[in-house]
Amino acid sequence: MTSNRLNLPGIPPIDAAAQDLARARQATLTKPPGSLGRLEELSAQLAGIQGTPHPSVARRAVIVMAADHGVAEEGVSAYPQEVTRQMVANFLHGGAAINVLARQAGARVTVINIGVRGPLPLAGDALEEHKPVTGFDRRIAAGTANMTREPAMSRGQAEASICVGLEAVGLETSQGLDVLATGDMGIANTTASAAIAAAITGRPVAEVTGRGTGVEGAAFARKVRTVELALEVNHPDPRDGIDVLSKVGGLEIGGLVGVILGAAAKRIPVVLDGFISGAAALIACALRPEARAYLIASHRSAEAGHRAVLEYLGLEPLLDLRLRLGEGTGAVLALQLLEAAVRTLREMATFAEANVTGGQT
Amino acid sequence: MTSNRLNLPGIPPIDAAAQDLARARQATLTKPPGSLGRLEELSAQLAGIQGTPHPSVARRAVIVMAADHGVAEEGVSAYPQEVTRQMVANFLHGGAAINVLARQAGARVTVINIGVRGPLPLAGDALEEHKPVTGFDRRIAAGTANMTREPAMSRGQAEASICVGLEAVGLETSQGLDVLATGDMGIANTTASAAIAAAITGRPVAEVTGRGTGVEGAAFARKVRTVELALEVNHPDPRDGIDVLSKVGGLEIGGLVGVILGAAAKRIPVVLDGFISGAAALIACALRPEARAYLIASHRSAEAGHRAVLEYLGLEPLLDLRLRLGEGTGAVLALQLLEAAVRTLREMATFAEANVTGGQT
Repeated sequence: MTSNRLNLPGIPPIDAAAQDLARARQATLTKPPGSLGRLEELSAQLAGIQGTPHPSVARRAVIVMAADHGVAEEGVSAYPQEVTRQMVANFLHGGAAINVLARQAGARVTVINIGVRGPLPLAGDALEEHKPVTGFDRRIAAGTANMTREPAMSRGQAEASICVGLEAVGLETSQGLDVLATGDMGIANTTASAAIAAAITGRPVAEVTGRGTGVEGAAFARKVRTVELALEVNHPDPRDGIDVLSKVGGLEIGGLVGVILGAAAKRIPVVLDGFISGAAALIACALRPEARAYLIASHRSAEAGHRAVLEYLGLEPLLDLRLRLGEGTGAVLALQLLEAAVRTLREMATFAEANVTGGQT
Repeated sequence: MTSNRLNLPGIPPIDAAAQDLARARQATLTKPPGSLGRLEELSAQLAGIQGTPHPSVARRAVIVMAADHGVAEEGVSAYPQEVTRQMVANFLHGGAAINVLARQAGARVTVINIGVRGPLPLAGDALEEHKPVTGFDRRIAAGTANMTREPAMSRGQAEASICVGLEAVGLETSQGLDVLATGDMGIANTTASAAIAAAITGRPVAEVTGRGTGVEGAAFARKVRTVELALEVNHPDPRDGIDVLSKVGGLEIGGLVGVILGAAAKRIPVVLDGFISGAAALIACALRPEARAYLIASHRSAEAGHRAVLEYLGLEPLLDLRLRLGEGTGAVLALQLLEAAVRTLREMATFAEANVTGGQT
């Protein structure tokens, strides 16, 4: 287990020369220049991140951080808190959406219990016909405290959660890794993410609070008020990412902060899922602005605050399918688009090779 | 070769019972209801189309119709007309974007020369390490006539082009087929498609004419004027799809009309590529409005007129990646999303199976 004394890794700048080489190759391929749209930009970004004009996304993993939230007792979710634990068990048995979509995408699934309440079997207990899932127990606490009354966690716990994420990246890279997707599970974590988004982007709480798993009417008004109260009680300092994370964040969000920073430090592209991963990215970039260049926004979530998060980070999502499930589902769906970007860059014939007129452009 | 006396197949209504069963199963799966967004709708649409609550998209093909356009002599493209022929050769050698993306998607590629100028080798001559491409020679004419001076083709040629599409679907289904993607190649075919879009949707030519392969400035103004002239000279009747197709269409567009109608008749979902496939869909739905329910819009093209086409057809695209390449590239990219829709419907655990609280919603 990593020490919880926070020692953030340095993040290198992306490789502009590799990025330029990828762009130059795109211009020689048998298509009108720019006609593959965002796939062309994506291929260049991946080249810059990986430091090679021949980027690869062959070895893939999604890390799903799971934790509970004390603020759930305010009635901010359509589901009871025990669903966090039940869904982690579902992940480990291969029955959740993230399992299905990760199998399709050829991505390993690593589930980390960083703060789930109640007992969890974390042996790799996946169904035989399915790609195995790995579970790790790195529980820092049995969920956070209720942030409407006190800080969600101590500064030390927040730092420890980031260390778990850094460690998780190390475990993945030791197995071989080209691209990493982020995922989350935690009943009430859209409430924590809304508080983070309001604190860091400065947008009004009502604008960044969404329906989560499906809260409506009076329950939604209560959720907005809960976020406002958490901010009033805790006064998180937006210039201090650890302060925001500890006061109004969550253990799984801290874990994802570590995943993002750890991957960026190793030049591994990070494919962000939706609102919770976006909240983690806000904190990661508050701590290390250089991490921003390593981020790829997989999709725009139906969750209201995600738009503000993406705008603040300057990220344009690849997909917009009204997803609002979390778990990393949007992130693994987008892996196919990264593969398309890489494969067209690598496999398409050039104008010269194919004897097609017009390659001078 | 099919007779060119047009005998359009009947198109059955989609199976509402199968669609409802798919929706009912979605509500039992371990996720908040609706949280997989468009994937849930898509799974229900596929169930309705295929007439089973367990739809499949395992066996996939993309049909790429290729033809030349007499209107190319008006200077409406950034590329010379010979590029149509050169790119078809590129398809047959496996070097084009459609080859790369179809290999990734596990889709067969069938290229049909329905009206390319100049000689073409159409033997299956693909690179050995790559998925083979099948080429068919069904050439009706060496390109269309210049529609600014006369009809692009005769009514008989237009009907024959539709028959080629119907035949192509038969060839594909005889090999086993669950889903069909549409693709095109033809220098100047965004000009023909703009004329079709203006004729059928009633939108102004300037609104539905785009940059195509990359025309700018005076060349773009000339392209708009060319489309206007073609409509003035020919007066296509928007209530008569064959009239529009023959006067301002193209042979590959007619081929795709047949592909759409033939697939719908056999309850096979049709994944439309961009603007040219959309123009074919306008004509197909003018001929057989029932075909509309079998269409899936893969993406919103960067080509200006595509938005008007999708709005007219009432189709919401799955992807928006600023693609403007054609060939079927957007359509095969979207196949992964269809697979995700089908796999989540089939493979996810239910609330009851996974012992997760909350399935009553």
